[in-house]
Amino acid sequence: MVSVQEILSGDRLSLARLLSKIENDTSDGRATLSELFPHTGNAHLIGVTGAPGTGKSSLVNQLACYYRQPPENKTPKRVAIVAVDPSSPFSGGAVLGDRVRMRDLAGDPGVFIRSMASRGSLGGLATTTSGVVQAFDSAGFEIILIETVGAGQAEVDIARLAHTTLVVEAPGLGDEIQAIKAGILEIADILVVNKADRAGVENTERALRNMLNLSQPAKRVYRHHGTLETVPSPTAETPESESAWVPPIQKTVAIDGTGASELGDLIAQHKTHLQKTGEWERMERARLQAELENLLQITLVSRWRDALSAEMYENVFEQLIERQLSPRQAVDELLNSGPKS
Amino acid sequence: MVSVQEILSGDRLSLARLLSKIENDTSDGRATLSELFPHTGNAHLIGVTGAPGTGKSSLVNQLACYYRQPPENKTPKRVAIVAVDPSSPFSGGAVLGDRVRMRDLAGDPGVFIRSMASRGSLGGLATTTSGVVQAFDSAGFEIILIETVGAGQAEVDIARLAHTTLVVEAPGLGDEIQAIKAGILEIADILVVNKADRAGVENTERALRNMLNLSQPAKRVYRHHGTLETVPSPTAETPESESAWVPPIQKTVAIDGTGASELGDLIAQHKTHLQKTGEWERMERARLQAELENLLQITLVSRWRDALSAEMYENVFEQLIERQLSPRQAVDELLNSGPKS
Repeated sequence: MVSVQEILSGDRLSLARLLSKIENDTSDGRATLSELFPHTGNAHLIGVTGAPGTGKSSLVNQLACYYRQPPENKTPKRVAIVAVDPSSPFSGGAVLGDRVRMRDLAGDPGVFIRSMASRGSLGGLATTTSGVVQAFDSAGFEIILIETVGAGQAEVDIARLAHTTLVVEAPGLGDEIQAIKAGILEIADILVVNKADRAGVENTERALRNMLNLSQPAKRVYRHHGTLETVPSPTAETPESESAWVPPIQKTVAIDGTGASELGDLIAQHKTHLQKTGEWERMERARLQAELENLLQITLVSRWRDALSAEMYENVFEQLIERQLSPRQAVDELLNSGPKS
Repeated sequence: MVSVQEILSGDRLSLARLLSKIENDTSDGRATLSELFPHTGNAHLIGVTGAPGTGKSSLVNQLACYYRQPPENKTPKRVAIVAVDPSSPFSGGAVLGDRVRMRDLAGDPGVFIRSMASRGSLGGLATTTSGVVQAFDSAGFEIILIETVGAGQAEVDIARLAHTTLVVEAPGLGDEIQAIKAGILEIADILVVNKADRAGVENTERALRNMLNLSQPAKRVYRHHGTLETVPSPTAETPESESAWVPPIQKTVAIDGTGASELGDLIAQHKTHLQKTGEWERMERARLQAELENLLQITLVSRWRDALSAEMYENVFEQLIERQLSPRQAVDELLNSGPKS
């Protein structure tokens, strides 16, 4: 059993051991997480998503450096990085990205990096990620950067864990429309155009601005249930005083750190906005509900399966293979004659 | 109720009505699918996946043209195209792709195109896609092209529906390594380098070949449980006579149709290979099992939920919000005191 006190006091070794237990979903890890849960809810969770090739890892790296060595009168914050690769079903990815990070951040006790690849189901990965985030939260990490590798539904689900979601784009990623479609804009709180020193950055920015104008009303309805108003054109000046958040577009060059400080400011402004409007608490509820639903589903299925006889299952499955039963009919057969658990 | 006889005889209007019922998951649609199920199992399911910007839609378009107007002594086949967009959680995508397709394929009664966007859960989308594929299969479509928009886990899950999976790459999609990582190579039966008239095609092909050499042993174990042998370097010449399939690399230019005929030949060779080795039947079993598992899970959860009192749920959820219960503890509370269904 990992010591709860050691986690709360920020002991790195205990934290590393707990993270492994969470990833392996041990009963020990579950129990510790439950004990730590009352100590969570303090961290700012920042999701970073976008298509491959946009330079997300470097950007996350720069953000971590920004929080560790902030400009002028700000105090450094402890930063956890959770790199999630749901698109890798067979092997752990993100190794390359980690190595790049180690150069800049290695040895800093205020930074903790954890890579996670998909093991088993997607539901499982979201649950594990949530557990890892809670562990960092309880251990006093004030900033938790959750980076996902791709831009699919799985990434969107994981991005929903976050208070603030950055969607990263870059110029020259093939067809402009294809790269920024896919509804992913609608989850963006801040849009980042990385590799902004490349040719075509104006086109990317213009395309994003146009799509933002199109998608804005839908986002507003989604976020603020029924408060449709005229939406101003999004600008890089963040409308902090307004009640509705209009996603700003920030240009960065993650390789040399350009724009990281401005991005950090926007992230802080978004947090202030969430807290002022009560959105922070609403998101907290939504996040906990999603986690509850997810855990319920996984647990329900595994309990039912534990109680089912293998023979019964095989019998029904063979009838399915012979096409004597359709998939739906096979499910009815299993659920109606199976154990009532 | 849609007439089963009309579907089996290939009536397009009935088929369109059935597809809508399947997408809306009506009891009517479920019943019809169950009746049609004994008539399925004849179609060759071809999955097409790859990162955005690789030109998948145009390639699928060209393949459909190839099957409708095959070279020399081959007979035309009826083609269904199922375009799945799991990365679009909020709005139906694939509209642009459809419009491009319509120009070439409109009016051909041997082609049927259906676009599907994610509604609700991923599990739901996989189930719906499977139902749509079964409907096409029973209606006598010999070739079913299943195209997904991105390259994440959801796409991999959907690609697993297919007998033959094409993974599409293209030169110049940002960082070479990023674009082709993500374990997606390991699901490829045939690799397509599209936009092969572009600069950098040799680099893309070389990178793919290197990664194939690396990933090959793992794939062999995955496919043929424990038959590790020395793996020859993959070549465009398909080793039809061998017992192990080495994924060939085919260059195409989907805009003008270059390589479509060669790709069609490779797809046919892969089918022959699957049938000769008994792999076709093993895949059929695996596919039906995956569908059974998926349906089981969805049905189990929805039945339990129907039997649960809203008051009980709200009560536990409030304790979670107050952090008096952890998520795990909340699940235990709900499952242990909930209805025994």
